[in-house]
Amino acid sequence: MSHDLLIRNVCPWGAPKTDILIRDGRIASMSPGLAADGIATEDGGGAIALPGLVEAHTHLDKSLWGMGWRPHQAGPRLIDKIETERRLKKEWDIDAHRQSARQAVLSLSHGSTAIRSHVDIDTEIGLAGFEGVAATRADLGEVIDIEIVAFPQSGMMCRSGTLELIEAALASGADVVGGLDPCAIDGDPKGQLDAVFALAEKHGKPIDVHLHEPDELGAFSMEMILERTKAHGMQGNVTISHAFCLGMADRARAHGLVERLAEERIAIATVATASRPVPAAAELREAGVTLCAGSDGIRDTWGPYGNADMLERAMLLGLRNNFRTDPDVEHALWCCSYGGAKVMGLPDYGLDEGCAADLVLVEAEAVAHAVTAHPPRRLVIKRGRVVGRDGRALVEVP
Amino acid sequence: MSHDLLIRNVCPWGAPKTDILIRDGRIASMSPGLAADGIATEDGGGAIALPGLVEAHTHLDKSLWGMGWRPHQAGPRLIDKIETERRLKKEWDIDAHRQSARQAVLSLSHGSTAIRSHVDIDTEIGLAGFEGVAATRADLGEVIDIEIVAFPQSGMMCRSGTLELIEAALASGADVVGGLDPCAIDGDPKGQLDAVFALAEKHGKPIDVHLHEPDELGAFSMEMILERTKAHGMQGNVTISHAFCLGMADRARAHGLVERLAEERIAIATVATASRPVPAAAELREAGVTLCAGSDGIRDTWGPYGNADMLERAMLLGLRNNFRTDPDVEHALWCCSYGGAKVMGLPDYGLDEGCAADLVLVEAEAVAHAVTAHPPRRLVIKRGRVVGRDGRALVEVP
Repeated sequence: MSHDLLIRNVCPWGAPKTDILIRDGRIASMSPGLAADGIATEDGGGAIALPGLVEAHTHLDKSLWGMGWRPHQAGPRLIDKIETERRLKKEWDIDAHRQSARQAVLSLSHGSTAIRSHVDIDTEIGLAGFEGVAATRADLGEVIDIEIVAFPQSGMMCRSGTLELIEAALASGADVVGGLDPCAIDGDPKGQLDAVFALAEKHGKPIDVHLHEPDELGAFSMEMILERTKAHGMQGNVTISHAFCLGMADRARAHGLVERLAEERIAIATVATASRPVPAAAELREAGVTLCAGSDGIRDTWGPYGNADMLERAMLLGLRNNFRTDPDVEHALWCCSYGGAKVMGLPDYGLDEGCAADLVLVEAEAVAHAVTAHPPRRLVIKRGRVVGRDGRALVEVP
Repeated sequence: MSHDLLIRNVCPWGAPKTDILIRDGRIASMSPGLAADGIATEDGGGAIALPGLVEAHTHLDKSLWGMGWRPHQAGPRLIDKIETERRLKKEWDIDAHRQSARQAVLSLSHGSTAIRSHVDIDTEIGLAGFEGVAATRADLGEVIDIEIVAFPQSGMMCRSGTLELIEAALASGADVVGGLDPCAIDGDPKGQLDAVFALAEKHGKPIDVHLHEPDELGAFSMEMILERTKAHGMQGNVTISHAFCLGMADRARAHGLVERLAEERIAIATVATASRPVPAAAELREAGVTLCAGSDGIRDTWGPYGNADMLERAMLLGLRNNFRTDPDVEHALWCCSYGGAKVMGLPDYGLDEGCAADLVLVEAEAVAHAVTAHPPRRLVIKRGRVVGRDGRALVEVP
C-alpha cells in the first residue's frame, strides 16, 4: 500500500518553514510551495517536524498499562523486583502479546516510530514473552518497527536452561542478544559474557547488556565487555544499557572507560534515572560515544512511572544532565531520535530527501521548546501513513 | 462574594466516593448523597479530590512565559546566571507585574492555589520586582494566595544598600525574609545571617534562605542557620531552600544535620533537582523534618524548563527519591500540598470539614496514579469558586 502525502508548512528540526512531499513512504522532496496535484495534504501549521522518535530501551512484555492501577509490591533490591515480577506475571496474567500491543500503540500516540524492547526469557515463562511481543511486532509491522532483545531477566548462567531458550529465541527471530549484570545477578561474568558473545557471533546478531552494577563492579564487567567486543570484532554492534558505573565519583576512572567505549564503538542506552548515578551525556558526546535513550519499564511491577513519551524523556535527560542551552537540549532529543536509530541500525533514518517518511509534528517555537513543553503530538507519520493525530494513535490495539 | 458549591462524586485523597458541600468558601460537610437545594453543583465524575496544590518555591518575577522562546544564554556558574539575569531583565523588559501574573495563572491552571515566591531585590532593580509581584498578589488575591520572600538574589552584604531595600520591602508587605548562599555569594556568612535573623526578629517575619552551597561549605552555613534559629527562638519559622549539602556523600554527617533540623523545626524546600545531590525525602520524613517543593524558576534566564505543574513536580520528586510504593509516591504529593501549606502557614488547609475549600480534581484511579500520570486538572476550586477547568484557568491574566 502506497502512502503519498504532502505536508505543508513545517519546520524540519526547527529550520525555516517548508513543505515535505512523501512518495512511496519516503521523503521525496522538501521545499516551500510544492505542488499537490491530487495527493493527500496535511497542513502542518508551522509545527516543528522531527524524525519519528526512537524508544531505544523498554520492556514491552511487562507493562501493566490498561490493567488498572496496581500498587507497587516489590522490595528495594534488584532481585526483589525480579522475583516479584516472576510471581505477578502469573498471578495477574500479564500477557505479553496484549500488553506489548497496548504499550506500542501508546508509544505511537507520542510519536515513537521505532522501539527496541528487551523481552524476558527464563525457565518459568520460557519463550511465551518473546512469542507475545513477536506477535505484536507482526501485528503492528506496518506502523511501528519493533526490535526484540532476548533478555535473560532472571539470569543466564544461574538458571540452567536459560541459555538454550535465548538461543531458541534468536533462531525464531529475536534480533539482539541480551545480557544482565554478569557479576551481580549471575555471579559468573566470564561464563555469561563468553556465552553472550558466542551467541552473537553464531547468529550474527548485535548485543545489548543491562549493566546496573555500580562503581568498580560495573567497571569490571564493562572492561570484560570491552575486551570481548575487541576480540570478537563486534565494534559498532554492542550496546550497554544503564551503565550506572559511568556515573561513578572517580571521574578520571569513568573517563578512561568512556574513551575505551569510543574505541570499540560501544553505544550506551540510558533512562536518565534521577535516583542513580548515570553516564554523563556531554562526556559521551565529546568522546564520540553514541547515547540513546528509553523509557525502561512503563507502569510495571518494577515501578509506577512512565508514559512512553520520548519528548518527555528528552526533557528528563536534559534535566538529569543539567542541559540548559538550546544545542544541549537538542542533543537530549538527538539521543531520543538519531541516537536510538543509530543503535537500532534503522536504515534511511532522518529528515533528508530519500529518508524513510517517519515523522512527528509538534507545535513549538523551537526544538528545545518542543522538549521542555512536550505538547501532544499534532501528527505522527509512519512511512507516509498518518498513524497519530492530536496526541492519539489512529491505530487500534489489535 | 459567597461561593457555595456542591461537588458530587469525588474521592478525597483517594478515599471512597463522597460529596463535598462548600459554604462560604469552606468545606461545610462531606458525605455521600448530600442534598443540593438550589446550590450550584459540579459532578466530580469519581475524580480524586486533592487539596489545592502548593507551589512552595518559585520566582514569579522572572519567568519568560508568554514572551516567546528565548534560548538560554548564561554560563555554567551560579554567578553567571545571576549576572546574565540582571542584564537581560533590562534588555528584554522582564516586567515583574506582567510575568508574575502570567505564571500565577499558569499555576492555577494546574491546580496550585498557593504560591511562595522569592522576588529579587537588588541595588539595580530596587523594589520594582517586589512591587510588580505585590500588584499581582493584589490583582489575584481572590483566586490564589501569594507569599513574597524578599530575596537578595545578587547578594546582601556584598552589594551595599541591599539590606536597606530588603527592609523596605518587609515594611511594604513582603512576607518572608530571604537569604542566599551566605558564603559562596556574599563571602560574609556571619554578616548575612546576623542581618537576616535581625530583620526577621524586628519585623516578626519568617525566614527562607537559598542554600546551594554543597558538601561541607553548605553544612557550615547550615550550622550557622541552626545556631541562630535556636538563639532567636525561630523554631518553626525557618526554611532552607535546596539544601544541596544534605545530599552529600557522607551520609552520617548529613544525617546529623537532619537531626538538628528536626530539633529546630527548620523546613526544607526542594525542587528535586535531578543533576545535583538533594536532600533525601525519606530521611527527612523519618526525622520529622517538613519537606515542601516547588518548580523553582519557570522558563527564565536560569533555564528553559518548567510548567508550574505541582503534580508533575511530585512525579519528579518521586523519581529523584526512587519512590515506588503508593505510600511513598503519595508522600511526594504530600510535600507538594500539605508540606507547602505547613511551610506557608496556610490556615485551615486540607480536606476536612471546616477547611478552606481550595480543591483540585484529577481523574485517576489512585492518588499515586494522579502523580505518575498527572493528567490535566478536571476542576480547580479556590475558596469555593471554580477557577480552573479541564486544564485551563478560568481567570484572565490581569
